[in-house]
Amino acid sequence: MKRNVLIIGAGGVAQVTAHKCAQHAPALGDIHIASRTKAKCDEIIASIHEKGSLKGGGALSAHALDAMDTPAVSALIRETGAQIVINVGSPFVNMSVLAACIETGAAYMDTAIHEDPEKICETPPWYGNYEWQRRDACARAGVTAILGIGFDPGVVNAYAKLAIADHVPDPVSIDIVDINAGSHGRWFATNFDPEINFREFTGTVYSWQDGAWQTNKMFEVGKVWDLPVVGEQKAYMTGHDEVHSLATHYPNADVRFWMGFGDHYINVFTVLKNLGLLSEQPVKTAEGLEVVPLKVVKAVLPDPASLAPDYEGKTCIGTQVRNAAGAEVFIYNVADHREAFAEVGSQGISYTAGVPPVAAALLIADGTWDTGTMVNVEELDPKPFLRLLDGMGLPTRLRDERGDRAWDE
Amino acid sequence: MKRNVLIIGAGGVAQVTAHKCAQHAPALGDIHIASRTKAKCDEIIASIHEKGSLKGGGALSAHALDAMDTPAVSALIRETGAQIVINVGSPFVNMSVLAACIETGAAYMDTAIHEDPEKICETPPWYGNYEWQRRDACARAGVTAILGIGFDPGVVNAYAKLAIADHVPDPVSIDIVDINAGSHGRWFATNFDPEINFREFTGTVYSWQDGAWQTNKMFEVGKVWDLPVVGEQKAYMTGHDEVHSLATHYPNADVRFWMGFGDHYINVFTVLKNLGLLSEQPVKTAEGLEVVPLKVVKAVLPDPASLAPDYEGKTCIGTQVRNAAGAEVFIYNVADHREAFAEVGSQGISYTAGVPPVAAALLIADGTWDTGTMVNVEELDPKPFLRLLDGMGLPTRLRDERGDRAWDE
Repeated sequence: MKRNVLIIGAGGVAQVTAHKCAQHAPALGDIHIASRTKAKCDEIIASIHEKGSLKGGGALSAHALDAMDTPAVSALIRETGAQIVINVGSPFVNMSVLAACIETGAAYMDTAIHEDPEKICETPPWYGNYEWQRRDACARAGVTAILGIGFDPGVVNAYAKLAIADHVPDPVSIDIVDINAGSHGRWFATNFDPEINFREFTGTVYSWQDGAWQTNKMFEVGKVWDLPVVGEQKAYMTGHDEVHSLATHYPNADVRFWMGFGDHYINVFTVLKNLGLLSEQPVKTAEGLEVVPLKVVKAVLPDPASLAPDYEGKTCIGTQVRNAAGAEVFIYNVADHREAFAEVGSQGISYTAGVPPVAAALLIADGTWDTGTMVNVEELDPKPFLRLLDGMGLPTRLRDERGDRAWDE
Repeated sequence: MKRNVLIIGAGGVAQVTAHKCAQHAPALGDIHIASRTKAKCDEIIASIHEKGSLKGGGALSAHALDAMDTPAVSALIRETGAQIVINVGSPFVNMSVLAACIETGAAYMDTAIHEDPEKICETPPWYGNYEWQRRDACARAGVTAILGIGFDPGVVNAYAKLAIADHVPDPVSIDIVDINAGSHGRWFATNFDPEINFREFTGTVYSWQDGAWQTNKMFEVGKVWDLPVVGEQKAYMTGHDEVHSLATHYPNADVRFWMGFGDHYINVFTVLKNLGLLSEQPVKTAEGLEVVPLKVVKAVLPDPASLAPDYEGKTCIGTQVRNAAGAEVFIYNVADHREAFAEVGSQGISYTAGVPPVAAALLIADGTWDTGTMVNVEELDPKPFLRLLDGMGLPTRLRDERGDRAWDE
């Protein structure tokens, strides 16, 4: 059965998701893109036509939408006949979009935890603050809601599930490692909106270790990882969504997230933070002008979208699982910035986040993942998902004592 | 003969100059302080009374003055009967104040080169751009004008003159070294107005070597100096006023200026500069607000005046002169931040700059330095000046092959 898709958001990730939906339109249905600024949706549609990404004869339409307005989202779902909503908008709109899905019966997906603009880094487990409070409502309405179905969270949760099911039972540790070994050629730039980027690293770092939530500061705990393709890379324990669901589902394992940062990034971040230039609180200049320092930093930094054409190199993101018997597996993907740009006009980081929800949409459309309730990705069968991704530009590999190979060899 | 003094400016250096004038009021006359904001002059006067610095029975008065307005400066000189004007205001007012001195016959002093707010780092020798063009006018009017009579430029020029006259004839090199080995205890702060401070280091570094002007970039040429009291210190070749007069008066010697910077300062400076946050050109935030990044940096940094109470440690500033015969002398002063604060309520850097013009005022008042024309400090007899400074909190020491001792032992 065909299922019309409504994509909410029009940023770099939405661009990838829209391209991939267009490539798979025959297995889905009409494709709709909605954002506060309709012109950004029109640009994405133009780039889809330019790349010749649209397959089949379905519709491809742009809509203006305030995604914080649940009745407006419900109305658009009904108007478009969307049965699958892929929310790749700002993390502030998750709950209003989910409410519209519960009301209309459409399937819901997002790629990042809900955030309240007023708060940074709330109590763990983060999913318990908003998402899981709507689990019963989803079940009652028979609504499929797949939380965090980007790459990380998302694919890495499926990697954890696969590792534990087939390779390393009774895990003692689950470590997600996210390395961007690419280079944009600028002296300094953030890969996405500097306001959101820096915001992610100014709060508490939560990890689940020894059966309890542990707290650290950003850049406090570092470790060198020796990874396929990208080699030795320094990564730092970082707060991240998937720690909060994996720790709940595998409470006997330590669950940590590690993100790679070069010394240069850390240095710039540290200088800006310590000077107070990352503050969201306004300061007053000698001339009496009130201004938020972080917004000035954002204004002087390169526009993240401008980085894609020059981005080169690779990302490596994966999940390492170990158990007490000494078994260890690392399941991962390597993506290439230039290939991503050539295919969909975005850099590799947007690519890895934007493709997985389309694979999930295909699995909802064919019934495989149409759960009729709210789930995190590790609650689903990972194999059909990883098989689809293998053919959609995000192949999965596996490294263990038998060597490095495709995950299903 | 008593000579009334008019101090122009009410910043950290002016505070020191005013305190020292007050301490020596019996040898001078009435003391007047003028600034655009009269309240700042009143604060200085209050602190002089609080410390009991005023000796003798002369007047001590505050005035509002726009020092860019030559007729207003002339009028105030006449109204106060000032015969000595100490200009320790912004470097933008030098020429308008000098013009008033030429018109009224008052002696003129400043501590830094004239600057045009629109230009950074003009053609060498800098004194040729504005000051020396008024030399004939001073001579015709019989006006004493002593240029650059702070510590550096100023005392270090007198050190060069003394070294060459008494210790190292026919010099092949004159190196000024300025080290602040003190600590303000903040993560980062500038010792004076961040706008002026950073402005000093964003232009070309001029030095006089091999009989010609040489250009470098800031932090391009570094050297470790082993200095009395403060020990080994890394300093960088920096553009500075005194290079431009000493090179003119001693063209056969290489003339360089070196300023000490810690790696931390350089790192913060480099990050801010490379991100574009030291720019004086406005940028527009995503919300459409036009703002000058440098003014936001200034707004988040500590107020330099707030550093004085916690400042500890010492400065070492001096002149090293060498000749082809292998003779070498280093003449220097070591000042202490806490002692400066205890005596006059300012930190050591303001202290070293603010005391020397008062010694010069005493030498003009008693006729010793009342040249009736425009001079740089190396054109004057250094000995009476250094003798006065020995008793005013800035004793001079000398290090050569005979060891380290007072300069006149």
